[in-house]
Amino acid sequence: WALEFEEEAIMSGNTVEHVKDAAPIMGKYFDILCIRTFPSLKNKEDDYSELYIRQFIKYAGIPIVSLESATLHPLQSLTDIITMQEYMRGPAQAAGFAGRKPKVVLTWAPHVKPLPQCVANSFSQWVNAWGQADFVITHPEDYELAEQFTKGARIEYDQSAALKDADFVYVKNWSTFRDYGKIYTNDPEWMLTNEKLALTNQARVLHCLPVRRNVELSDEILDGANSLVTTQAGNRVWAAQAVLAAILRGE
Amino acid sequence: WALEFEEEAIMSGNTVEHVKDAAPIMGKYFDILCIRTFPSLKNKEDDYSELYIRQFIKYAGIPIVSLESATLHPLQSLTDIITMQEYMRGPAQAAGFAGRKPKVVLTWAPHVKPLPQCVANSFSQWVNAWGQADFVITHPEDYELAEQFTKGARIEYDQSAALKDADFVYVKNWSTFRDYGKIYTNDPEWMLTNEKLALTNQARVLHCLPVRRNVELSDEILDGANSLVTTQAGNRVWAAQAVLAAILRGE
Amino acid sequence: WALEFEEEAIMSGNTVEHVKDAAPIMGKYFDILCIRTFPSLKNKEDDYSELYIRQFIKYAGIPIVSLESATLHPLQSLTDIITMQEYMRGPAQAAGFAGRKPKVVLTWAPHVKPLPQCVANSFSQWVNAWGQADFVITHPEDYELAEQFTKGARIEYDQSAALKDADFVYVKNWSTFRDYGKIYTNDPEWMLTNEKLALTNQARVLHCLPVRRNVELSDEILDGANSLVTTQAGNRVWAAQAVLAAILRGE
Repeated sequence: WALEFEEEAIMSGNTVEHVKDAAPIMGKYFDILCIRTFPSLKNKEDDYSELYIRQFIKYAGIPIVSLESATLHPLQSLTDIITMQEYMRGPAQAAGFAGRKPKVVLTWAPHVKPLPQCVANSFSQWVNAWGQADFVITHPEDYELAEQFTKGARIEYDQSAALKDADFVYVKNWSTFRDYGKIYTNDPEWMLTNEKLALTNQARVLHCLPVRRNVELSDEILDGANSLVTTQAGNRVWAAQAVLAAILRGE
Repeated sequence: WALEFEEEAIMSGNTVEHVKDAAPIMGKYFDILCIRTFPSLKNKEDDYSELYIRQFIKYAGIPIVSLESATLHPLQSLTDIITMQEYMRGPAQAAGFAGRKPKVVLTWAPHVKPLPQCVANSFSQWVNAWGQADFVITHPEDYELAEQFTKGARIEYDQSAALKDADFVYVKNWSTFRDYGKIYTNDPEWMLTNEKLALTNQARVLHCLPVRRNVELSDEILDGANSLVTTQAGNRVWAAQAVLAAILRGE
Repeated sequence: WALEFEEEAIMSGNTVEHVKDAAPIMGKYFDILCIRTFPSLKNKEDDYSELYIRQFIKYAGIPIVSLESATLHPLQSLTDIITMQEYMRGPAQAAGFAGRKPKVVLTWAPHVKPLPQCVANSFSQWVNAWGQADFVITHPEDYELAEQFTKGARIEYDQSAALKDADFVYVKNWSTFRDYGKIYTNDPEWMLTNEKLALTNQARVLHCLPVRRNVELSDEILDGANSLVTTQAGNRVWAAQAVLAAILRGE
């Protein structure tokens, strides 16, 4: 069911319904519409224009929630912040975090396919907006994310230096942003291991899942005591419910 | 999951379950079964026999609701009548419709693919059964629908003549019925525009959706004040609920 | 969405998520997880190891219900026993079954494709565990099922001899177990007909469905008064609800 998104299209091709017709009908059927869209990873301008979700916002007439769009993944990032806060407030941890900002490191990891930047973009945007972390992003050279999201974070090409004394390590692959959608390296040296974790302040490890085991993240990390990934995935439910509840309450 | 519909079939081929077994099981599971089937548009006798939905009616043992069958679409037509009635009873319109029948025009429109006749068949059948309209059907020559549905309507090959003083214009493509399932023309002159709408009595425009913009219907109509298509699509919910409620009440 | 089930896999291939990550997340989302898996019918050891469902049991952290696994189908068998018991307790039948065990015959039937042994395995296991039947399994030579399930039943290669005085006939195809996953015969003589039914004690006929009519079972049986297949299919709902309720009550 291919939707048409271009204004004034003469629809004699493969698209069967225009968002200008589909969105307002869904607006009649639902109170909130949650949408997931994906980037092409071929045309940066198109992807970063967020045409698909913007057209739904324009025409649906009801609140639109992003379940992940071409370049952002806000519900994931809300979950990520909640998961870190929840951990820091735990009875065994609260004292250690009292009176100081946690060091949060977002580290690039290898992957077999070119992936969107959306999780890394949103995580950067939200940690910066949160303002409660010493925030470092580490990745191979030429893997810089869009500055509009990372501004405020320290960029570090040396992963070991970045990991030093980290309290949280967020592991995620993304494809290149500047020379858009490419894989420049799959260097396995960038995969997080227990040896690297030893550089941190007993850091907790996050990942949005699904994860390619022993490519992005080692078994020893994922199966170890420092992994928060299952807790994090479970928190997706509460984060989404909080947003839906706030919208329904009219906040 | 290909169902078998033929009696006495020896099922050594591609069909994996007979409607004689599948339908009564669904009859055990549900109180009402809603079914959608499509025509082949290749064999008129087969399509108009409505074998698929008839076999479910025969074997399910519970009420069957058509969500669109090979040749009819009654829930759409109920919605269409409701939408016109609702409009006519509106505070700004009631006086203008008092004491007279509205002129309802069903007009054929171009399309890129051969489509079923079901929406046009049912609309004709229901407007005739309603009996509260001056009903005209306009289409290119040789696009006649089955008389069993259209009998009672005036057939007019000249679209402009048909549109004159219309109160409602229902726009819909269908493939040929007599020489079955063909496209004889895609003449863009048959697409409704504001210029043609000027011939009408400020007619409201209906379409069952999805619509091929600027092929079946122009942007200017769909985005204009005379379009009822979103309201009409929204009314599908209430029409279906009314039917389900009536069945559940045992009416 | 191909899951990885092997421990220590380096996931640079086609699998996108490991059961070690997927199962615990579902364990966070649900109270009970119901899973259906299928055998390859190519590697007996792999299929009978039940790797897929065992990995979910190991990692989900919540009760797992089999909706059919590679080699077993317990919810079907619970339904089958319930259906026979319900029939035996019927007002017209109770006297005839008083003080004696019913004769239950599981008969192999022809099919066009190699099918799993799971329904036959579980039915054998459950009827034996039930202990309230004179239980006979009949099939062509070399179609023996795994003894761990059939032990306690009498195996009979002569279908007519097996059917004699049967109270219930369970019809089901399965592919060979010893020389794994093969079709040795499709002999139509093994299809149950009214002529064969005359050998029984007016036996009721069961089948788990879907059934290939006039290949596995004749129309005359399925459409006749002795068929319980629709009742049996309907009982699947109550059997599943009973199991879910027992788990939720913590039994």
